[in-house]
Amino acid sequence: MKIKKAVITAAARGQRLYPVADTIQKAMLPVVDVDGLHKPTIQIIAEEAFGSGIEELCVVCAPGDGPRYVAAFTSLRDNLIKTYQNIDWARQQAEKIDHLLSRLQFAEQTEALGYGHAVACAREFVGHEPFLLLLGDYLYVSDVAGKRCAAQVLELATQQECAVAAVNPTIEHQINRYGTLTGKHVAGQAGVYQIDKIIEKPSLSTAELELQTPGLRAGYYLCFFGMHVLTPSIFPILQKQLDAGSANVLLTPALQELAETEKYLALEVRGNRYDLSRRHGLLRAQLALGLAGEAHDETLTTMVELLAEANTRK
Amino acid sequence: MKIKKAVITAAARGQRLYPVADTIQKAMLPVVDVDGLHKPTIQIIAEEAFGSGIEELCVVCAPGDGPRYVAAFTSLRDNLIKTYQNIDWARQQAEKIDHLLSRLQFAEQTEALGYGHAVACAREFVGHEPFLLLLGDYLYVSDVAGKRCAAQVLELATQQECAVAAVNPTIEHQINRYGTLTGKHVAGQAGVYQIDKIIEKPSLSTAELELQTPGLRAGYYLCFFGMHVLTPSIFPILQKQLDAGSANVLLTPALQELAETEKYLALEVRGNRYDLSRRHGLLRAQLALGLAGEAHDETLTTMVELLAEANTRK
Repeated sequence: MKIKKAVITAAARGQRLYPVADTIQKAMLPVVDVDGLHKPTIQIIAEEAFGSGIEELCVVCAPGDGPRYVAAFTSLRDNLIKTYQNIDWARQQAEKIDHLLSRLQFAEQTEALGYGHAVACAREFVGHEPFLLLLGDYLYVSDVAGKRCAAQVLELATQQECAVAAVNPTIEHQINRYGTLTGKHVAGQAGVYQIDKIIEKPSLSTAELELQTPGLRAGYYLCFFGMHVLTPSIFPILQKQLDAGSANVLLTPALQELAETEKYLALEVRGNRYDLSRRHGLLRAQLALGLAGEAHDETLTTMVELLAEANTRK
Repeated sequence: MKIKKAVITAAARGQRLYPVADTIQKAMLPVVDVDGLHKPTIQIIAEEAFGSGIEELCVVCAPGDGPRYVAAFTSLRDNLIKTYQNIDWARQQAEKIDHLLSRLQFAEQTEALGYGHAVACAREFVGHEPFLLLLGDYLYVSDVAGKRCAAQVLELATQQECAVAAVNPTIEHQINRYGTLTGKHVAGQAGVYQIDKIIEKPSLSTAELELQTPGLRAGYYLCFFGMHVLTPSIFPILQKQLDAGSANVLLTPALQELAETEKYLALEVRGNRYDLSRRHGLLRAQLALGLAGEAHDETLTTMVELLAEANTRK
């Protein structure tokens, strides 16, 4: 199977620790990407998808935000062309925005009924195909030259024709922030697991009892990386929660049900994800992208210079 | 004399290296300040003034931007209160925004006639008093605990009842980016000079001939720090350039004329300034503020962790 569609959930308001006036402003905050270009964070996430073979993108957003995204990107593109008309990087960035806008759709989340509901809002866009799901709050940095995190996940999903959750071995004191899972290691495939059980933000005692995975370092658990390939089977499962009148539809129980009804693998992604909603998340993400990409030397020099300056301060 | 008024020039469009859609969006980019609060960059500059004794502030902006700044800050304040209503830092930041809005005026620069023209636009606000001039593109970090960069400059201006330019000894290969000056060291006052000559962005050969200042390290020159206390005498001088029909009114020649007509000192500020318009300027500024302030330990840990991660990358 070829996976052509991606969904980014970006409807949550006020979930990030740095205060800005609205969701659009957050999504448009500029960061230097691994290619050295300044881009809005949402564009960097979109390019994670496009750079991994995705052709169509749907952003799940708050009501009315779709046209505002288009206006913000159009204004940014026009400003780049007007201000830096003959500079290569500006032209490259303007072209990337044109590419993005030509492949971008929106699905409005009209009520704030939880993350599972946000995913369900993309049902019409997705139709009957498998799709890549990314979070509007995460930036991803691959450890593998030339192969993005999403490309690693899509490759396994395509080969195995099934749903795949990207996971990361995570130290036990952090697992209460993530969906955490366990499964059987698939023989002959490094870092691939057949998913058995998923629990959202487990306590350490629950995890010790139910989520240990043989083969991981002591004190580590498999946690969601914020990146999935899902099949459309997820939608009727989510719909059941919605039909039951849930005001906070969670994705994790729906994924647990998916794991019980069809083949669902987990893949240890070779890379890191940076959660923009954490304290200093934007700064961390910026430094990580800087160190991982074309701006490596410059970022490193900057960090060393500033450490030296801070050290001379009285 | 007591200096109560400050002017921030923020009218320039498209001068920063990171592309955003407009001037307001640039000025509203959030950065963690030395007090640990996330604030828009323009607020951090404003607080440099308020934290140094300034009572009234005028932002020189592009036509129509005044109400848009007010709307952006009001929206940010409302969002903070709505989203984080019981959290201390959010309430503190909301109070700081209220303080800012109660002391903020705007002066429109209706034509783009240069930096000197932008300063001249604040003439009505300034009236017949001396004033502090700051750049909307710079963030300042003091090396002196409890005394901001602007406070150092204002202190000398108040004591000596004259105009003062903040300066920084700058290595020779960077002086072509700054207004550069020379003067006579004032006996008994460390880092204070009576200004003789100012040249905007001099070549190295010009600087070697005309701008050497005895007592500085070899290869160093006194460059503007982007912070001045000026007397209202600057306005008739700028007006002459405007009356002569200049389409690019420069501040530096006007300052040279000021130095020839009244007492005008330079002060080596104990601190650093971070130019947001430089490549990676926003990142540098963010790291510098993080390392200088309440978030020092956290910023340092973040930097070290990320360096370690980047080092394990294939």
